[in-house]
Amino acid sequence: MTENTDKGFICETLTFWDKLTEQEQSLILNNVTSASYKRGGNIHSYDNDCVGVLLIKSGELRAYILSEDGREITLYRLEKGEICILSASCVLKNITFDVHIDAEQDSEVLIINSGIFELVCNQNIYAENFSNKITVQRFSEVMYVMQQILFSSFDKRLAVFLIDEISKSGSDTISLTHEQIANYVGSAREVVSRMLKYFENMGLVALSRGKVTIIDKKRLRDFT
Amino acid sequence: MTENTDKGFICETLTFWDKLTEQEQSLILNNVTSASYKRGGNIHSYDNDCVGVLLIKSGELRAYILSEDGREITLYRLEKGEICILSASCVLKNITFDVHIDAEQDSEVLIINSGIFELVCNQNIYAENFSNKITVQRFSEVMYVMQQILFSSFDKRLAVFLIDEISKSGSDTISLTHEQIANYVGSAREVVSRMLKYFENMGLVALSRGKVTIIDKKRLRDFT
Repeated sequence: MTENTDKGFICETLTFWDKLTEQEQSLILNNVTSASYKRGGNIHSYDNDCVGVLLIKSGELRAYILSEDGREITLYRLEKGEICILSASCVLKNITFDVHIDAEQDSEVLIINSGIFELVCNQNIYAENFSNKITVQRFSEVMYVMQQILFSSFDKRLAVFLIDEISKSGSDTISLTHEQIANYVGSAREVVSRMLKYFENMGLVALSRGKVTIIDKKRLRDFT
Repeated sequence: MTENTDKGFICETLTFWDKLTEQEQSLILNNVTSASYKRGGNIHSYDNDCVGVLLIKSGELRAYILSEDGREITLYRLEKGEICILSASCVLKNITFDVHIDAEQDSEVLIINSGIFELVCNQNIYAENFSNKITVQRFSEVMYVMQQILFSSFDKRLAVFLIDEISKSGSDTISLTHEQIANYVGSAREVVSRMLKYFENMGLVALSRGKVTIIDKKRLRDFT
């Protein structure tokens, strides 16, 4: 049983709504429940049952995994109008991992029953594609986090090297290729290029062929 | 221009083939090229152009990203009959990251032009869904790798703790809950439970309520 305001929200949020048959639409509307979560409350864990697909009416949800020392590694956050699909991972054939989902703020959500959502996805290609599409978006966010983990201290290492070099030579310009710098700091050319580009965008260095010029020594030193 | 044997392979590999119009099928067939890669050769990098969608006729491809010290973090491997879609990431609206792809073995592939693949995905929901679906499969593999990175040394830490405990007590059974073990090793209950389960599956320990019994001390010691 769904209220009219909720119905409007569902049609808007599920962008494939118009592609559903009337029967599929009723099926979803009849299998939606409301739920409120207090800030910090857990919504979905590895252990517990498949909560369902969450449509966020207000608040904020956060998906994370745990590191070996029990730290929470945040994968992504979801806000008003967004959809949380990994909380229905039990019905997602291609998803073989699980995440934790907590309410990051007091949150109001609508929950579509997992089994019903699966049924509609199985019979309607637009629903299935929607489900896959928003999962792919999460994939991009997770890759970003993974790269942050892998590169967490490289900005520091590179900044230390650059500061050392100009201290030794007395000049603000370092005449080394990215490949040479990579060899010095024990990294790959491309990793160095990407981090230098990042420093350049921040106005810390200027890059030209075979040269790195330090523009803002003070702020670069903040990295070290 | 596509040979007949290649056409058969394309129809089979692109499981949405029957859902395409004749015009869409011709579009793809007329924009497929063949390529061979030597073992170790690079197929796709962050820097270079969008290679296209790769259909693997023989050999093996490997997708990876680089860590800060230039190590290659393998994300997944693709074999005969599989499809590499991230090599066409330039046309994937929801993919905002990039990976390296190398030939892991001498490989023969068919390449569908990126622009053409995008065009077909834009006008055919089955093609779009296929593209999203196989990307989601890669997501699962990447999550597995990420967890391996995060948990890389935890098996060792836990094995050391278990061996220490039985050495101290002289009994092969440790009377501690997973929660208590987590507190001792500085981790989370759930992380401990998962690793113990893994040890149990390998026949190293037996688990019961509030107890861990060491079954194969020798192999457990190999972890330490």
